[in-house]
Amino acid sequence: MIEIFTTGGTIDKVYFDALSEYQVGPTTLPDLLRENNVHVPHRVTQLMRKDSLELDDADREAIRAAVAASDATQVLVTHGTDTMAVTGRVLQSVAGKTIVMTGAMQPASVRASDAEFNVGFALAAVQTLPPGVYIAMNGMIFDPARTVKDRAGARFVAES
Amino acid sequence: MIEIFTTGGTIDKVYFDALSEYQVGPTTLPDLLRENNVHVPHRVTQLMRKDSLELDDADREAIRAAVAASDATQVLVTHGTDTMAVTGRVLQSVAGKTIVMTGAMQPASVRASDAEFNVGFALAAVQTLPPGVYIAMNGMIFDPARTVKDRAGARFVAES
Amino acid sequence: MIEIFTTGGTIDKVYFDALSEYQVGPTTLPDLLRENNVHVPHRVTQLMRKDSLELDDADREAIRAAVAASDATQVLVTHGTDTMAVTGRVLQSVAGKTIVMTGAMQPASVRASDAEFNVGFALAAVQTLPPGVYIAMNGMIFDPARTVKDRAGARFVAES
Amino acid sequence: MIEIFTTGGTIDKVYFDALSEYQVGPTTLPDLLRENNVHVPHRVTQLMRKDSLELDDADREAIRAAVAASDATQVLVTHGTDTMAVTGRVLQSVAGKTIVMTGAMQPASVRASDAEFNVGFALAAVQTLPPGVYIAMNGMIFDPARTVKDRAGARFVAES
Repeated sequence: MIEIFTTGGTIDKVYFDALSEYQVGPTTLPDLLRENNVHVPHRVTQLMRKDSLELDDADREAIRAAVAASDATQVLVTHGTDTMAVTGRVLQSVAGKTIVMTGAMQPASVRASDAEFNVGFALAAVQTLPPGVYIAMNGMIFDPARTVKDRAGARFVAES
Repeated sequence: MIEIFTTGGTIDKVYFDALSEYQVGPTTLPDLLRENNVHVPHRVTQLMRKDSLELDDADREAIRAAVAASDATQVLVTHGTDTMAVTGRVLQSVAGKTIVMTGAMQPASVRASDAEFNVGFALAAVQTLPPGVYIAMNGMIFDPARTVKDRAGARFVAES
Repeated sequence: MIEIFTTGGTIDKVYFDALSEYQVGPTTLPDLLRENNVHVPHRVTQLMRKDSLELDDADREAIRAAVAASDATQVLVTHGTDTMAVTGRVLQSVAGKTIVMTGAMQPASVRASDAEFNVGFALAAVQTLPPGVYIAMNGMIFDPARTVKDRAGARFVAES
Repeated sequence: MIEIFTTGGTIDKVYFDALSEYQVGPTTLPDLLRENNVHVPHRVTQLMRKDSLELDDADREAIRAAVAASDATQVLVTHGTDTMAVTGRVLQSVAGKTIVMTGAMQPASVRASDAEFNVGFALAAVQTLPPGVYIAMNGMIFDPARTVKDRAGARFVAES
């Protein structure tokens, strides 16, 4: 059983015409996994619906507590990209689990989204990597303690 | 020759990850028309890139002047939906042309967008209707003097 | 009330993995119209599910009879492109109705499909043109008696 | 450096209107990887453009030889699903490499395709699994020696 927690972020943003703006909507993960014929046992729980720039210490503690309390040893966390590494460093206190974080640079609702690719990438990573916390973005595996998002380049890069 | 003026609005919104928000981008019309194999002679000019809630009297006068100055008798105007009818009423002072306005409730960049359908609908309307100003939305032709947008219903309705 | 008859064609083709091939599926028109927030009164009836190369004289007579029997004066017919003009010439015996035919070069199920644009275009044409039979493709209105499909160019052209 | 070989299959099928049928086209992999902002070093080579039901022993030997001759230890092979396991068993004679096979039940050109998800999934698997041959489909990792495609269910299942 793979535990999947969603916290919001660009991946779940949808356009609300009545507001003339994009906001984080209900998580797209259940639809995304079903439409891609995913048959590995999993469970999706939406922990929060926030842009990751809005997450505070209490939110990160809530995410950490949910991951720690799960009886699963494989945990996938979808998260906004701007502070994904910050939350990843908080999750490093959870021992004995493979925790993989992913998100998207373009909402899943958008034609040119990287959401499906990234969730697929992360879903394999969480099944194959040893215990630890990982950021799975851009077709690469990063250590959250040594990763920064390059906003201009729309990608993650490893710090030496 | 069909003259197409774009003014911005939801139809041209794209998600900028570096800003964590949607903004009106370069107009999608040339790509949209090419991808749909449109072969009717036409010319696309981007007049402005604004959410229609930001259009002021000077903007509407600029749109009106561009339409009036065109040597085309068939003019298609893409526009944000919130104040489309307001601009439409300004355009009613232009005589002798068939002027059709359209837009979208969901950006063309989004999977579930109504942009392609609406532009197709408007492109037929502008070739077939007599001179006048029309709003072409929801598969219907509206008179801008007697139309309001129902924001909650994400549609236009005719006023009696 | 706009009467919409579907007969099959590329617009309704979907990929069947178990057969390793594309086939004409259930018509996409009701979904397509709903997803584009179409609010004009209409009714969709699937007359047949055939590639237009497979349509014979009996099929064309059945289409003609359905159009003639409809109590609507505005009739939209979706049809495969290869023999759309042939059927259009048969429909020219129906008097007093505006009959607009359209279809697609790429299935509605495909990302780069022209289906939404073409149906939007045809739906405006059927509401605005005088009685007669028309082919609405490539952003243009054609007379079926003087139109041929240019297969290599993936478009319709008018014959002089 | 990840070596990516494409052999055809449903993932690369596109609709050719002039032929009124789907055929395996030029591989979508380079576009797919670029559009998903993949930054892991990789190289894509199209070995063949065949439906996997048309692959014969000589084709499989050619695929095996290409994989064996690569200087990469991580090799991703895209392949039609119908005989993916057959080719996988041939590849099991190649030692010392992590070889991951994937494909799609719906062409990448189709809106509802599983191609992006599956390639993402396979790209993580090839970077994280020990040497061996694997089928990466349906969000799961399969052993080609003990896997069959369930055509009716549109999925792979493990044999006990």
